[in-house]
Amino acid sequence: MTDLKTAALDYHSQPRPGKLSVELTKPTATARDLSLAYSPGVAAPVREIARDPELAYRYTGKGNLVAVISDGTAILGLGNLGPLASKPVMEGKGVLFKRFAGVDVFDIEVDAESPQAFIDTVKRISITFGGINLEDIKAPECFEIERALIEQCDIPVFHDDQHGTAIVTAAGMLNALEIAGKTIEEAKIVCLGAGAAATSCMKLLVSIGAKIENIFMVDRKGVIHAGRDDLNQYKAIFAHETDKRTLDDALDGADVFVGLSGANLLSAEGLKRMAADPIVFACSNPDPEISPELAHATRSDVIMATGRSDYPNQVNNVLGFPFIFRGALDVRATRINEEMKIAAALALRDLAKLPVPAEVAAAYGVSDLQFGREYIIPKPMDPRLITLVSDAVAKAAIDSGVATLPYPSNYPLKSVNDVFNG
Amino acid sequence: MTDLKTAALDYHSQPRPGKLSVELTKPTATARDLSLAYSPGVAAPVREIARDPELAYRYTGKGNLVAVISDGTAILGLGNLGPLASKPVMEGKGVLFKRFAGVDVFDIEVDAESPQAFIDTVKRISITFGGINLEDIKAPECFEIERALIEQCDIPVFHDDQHGTAIVTAAGMLNALEIAGKTIEEAKIVCLGAGAAATSCMKLLVSIGAKIENIFMVDRKGVIHAGRDDLNQYKAIFAHETDKRTLDDALDGADVFVGLSGANLLSAEGLKRMAADPIVFACSNPDPEISPELAHATRSDVIMATGRSDYPNQVNNVLGFPFIFRGALDVRATRINEEMKIAAALALRDLAKLPVPAEVAAAYGVSDLQFGREYIIPKPMDPRLITLVSDAVAKAAIDSGVATLPYPSNYPLKSVNDVFNG
Repeated sequence: MTDLKTAALDYHSQPRPGKLSVELTKPTATARDLSLAYSPGVAAPVREIARDPELAYRYTGKGNLVAVISDGTAILGLGNLGPLASKPVMEGKGVLFKRFAGVDVFDIEVDAESPQAFIDTVKRISITFGGINLEDIKAPECFEIERALIEQCDIPVFHDDQHGTAIVTAAGMLNALEIAGKTIEEAKIVCLGAGAAATSCMKLLVSIGAKIENIFMVDRKGVIHAGRDDLNQYKAIFAHETDKRTLDDALDGADVFVGLSGANLLSAEGLKRMAADPIVFACSNPDPEISPELAHATRSDVIMATGRSDYPNQVNNVLGFPFIFRGALDVRATRINEEMKIAAALALRDLAKLPVPAEVAAAYGVSDLQFGREYIIPKPMDPRLITLVSDAVAKAAIDSGVATLPYPSNYPLKSVNDVFNG
Repeated sequence: MTDLKTAALDYHSQPRPGKLSVELTKPTATARDLSLAYSPGVAAPVREIARDPELAYRYTGKGNLVAVISDGTAILGLGNLGPLASKPVMEGKGVLFKRFAGVDVFDIEVDAESPQAFIDTVKRISITFGGINLEDIKAPECFEIERALIEQCDIPVFHDDQHGTAIVTAAGMLNALEIAGKTIEEAKIVCLGAGAAATSCMKLLVSIGAKIENIFMVDRKGVIHAGRDDLNQYKAIFAHETDKRTLDDALDGADVFVGLSGANLLSAEGLKRMAADPIVFACSNPDPEISPELAHATRSDVIMATGRSDYPNQVNNVLGFPFIFRGALDVRATRINEEMKIAAALALRDLAKLPVPAEVAAAYGVSDLQFGREYIIPKPMDPRLITLVSDAVAKAAIDSGVATLPYPSNYPLKSVNDVFNG
């Protein structure tokens, strides 16, 4: 870890601080160029936009610009370190948006005294952007913040910690269930953790077929059930009548374990309680709920995913957010709705089943990647993500009535291809 | 103007919308690169910044990042067209910041219901940036907004419409007075207009030696004088005992006319009232208070500056703000104070007196540029601006105690030279 730390600090500071710069996309060599970029030429697009606000998408960068916004209250696995300390993460998110989907990102760190102040602030600057990616905001405040901003803004607002993880988990889960010969409709699912990612994840599994009565969510006080009176509204959705009370109770005969707890809490004993071909998504970082080594040593029939890049089947948000926003921006969707999230999950599910080009496997230092227990989720370096996932999201936006442009629109598609080829 | 309009709209929309993009400055080719840029590597700079907030300048782009922020209430000469319509201007300002001084800019358009809401919003996002350039905010709200943000933020906050114009005007004025054989201390100055730029301009002239009793500010109701009871606090500074009441009264025997009125209001008759070698800064755009043609036809001894690029002696803010922020960022100044503004003005004054390289003249399609009536202000394409003006500002920041880094610091100077050579 010391080597990683040193390398990471060098990466962030050398030869210049940070990871992003703002660059010019138009000529600025001559006085004439500058008279077009600024005064007096700039008056023309100003007047056009004042006449028709939609033209901001034609004459400014708005349509390809996403704000990655955080208050730093839940930074990765590090907790509440404040907005300034979150800046490297938000800039890093910008790196991934650009690298994978050609989306321009302004990272905005917000020092707000209350959730309402955060909401007001983001709302007031929202016209600057074509979309808003909320990041690393702690639960339960993140729910209210996202809800309010979706309601108040006419551009997509998406809290990636909730939905990104959910989308990638759902994709992998469907493939794991297929391999195990099970269905989402019948699967008994244990979710350890009941925070933002966990509740969003279970909601999306319900959207694609899981039954709430088959879901056993476990928080610090044990199984969430109908008899508890200490549940906030976000957890209460998953409360149902059951006599299960402990994690062990829940694990008995379970088909699926999803760990979003932030701690190493699934024991070999617990894993043994699960049904045949148990599916274990141990997503906490850097320490999964159970290590893949222990899981495989305990049961040879386990299908395992983690949040880590050094094991197979990484639940990595980068498989989602760049392409989800790419698709949403390309058809100028007014929001990212459930249909679009499901479309992204299904596209990721399907992509994992396609033959993998040799160069993609080579990028990960292996000779071969193919659908199976060790490959239920695509890899971030797969260049087909941007067409398959973005297209699916764009089409779902159109079909569900939240798109305001037909697909394909001219500019963004060209941009997508640029990303591919350059 | 139709040609300019068409060219400007094409420039802003082709081949892709807008003028700026966000680009990656570090390698992102391999999975290892991405693990440094984002998870898990990014945890290291996060922890460092949480430990010592100053390290945000080492590990993120904060130190070279300026927010250009507007509410769109006073867009160029176009008036209150709202924040969205101001976006091309703010992006254009970003183009100039980058092109001339290597400063990265996020343009932020704010839709705020009140000046206080604007202040709160900018304050809450201010930690994202190394500096804040306020732009195109109407008077008198702009004064209170700037004052509050300077007080509440620990980074430079600068309303360019006020101070940028003032700095460039002051530089040109000192040279014009020298050519006319007059001094700022004795000059009788008429200022037509009493808005943000005008009051800031007159304040800076006072800082460099002008006497308030020699300044006659003229608003819609005539000369501002001690007997008026309709003056806001910003105009009241310039009220003194006088029997002058009209613009013509004020022009009688005046040495200097500064027009920041937004209208063509100086007649040949008015110009004739002025003293020998009258100095006329007719800064309104696109129509100066008096056209250079009429001024020169009326008096052969006039020394004339305008806000237009198609006449000699353009009072162009781009001579100021990129280099002022470059200097302030390079020594991590906590504010841009009066000393730094004066330093910028004096550096611009001095630069106009230096021999001009032939290639600079050629960039403007002329064979020669040299100090004199037609060259009292440097040209934006002069590559010496970034060293002379930025250095002067940085040194003034150090001398006045608002710098927090010694000069020169390593990174930014290298960046400055990069701008020069690339």
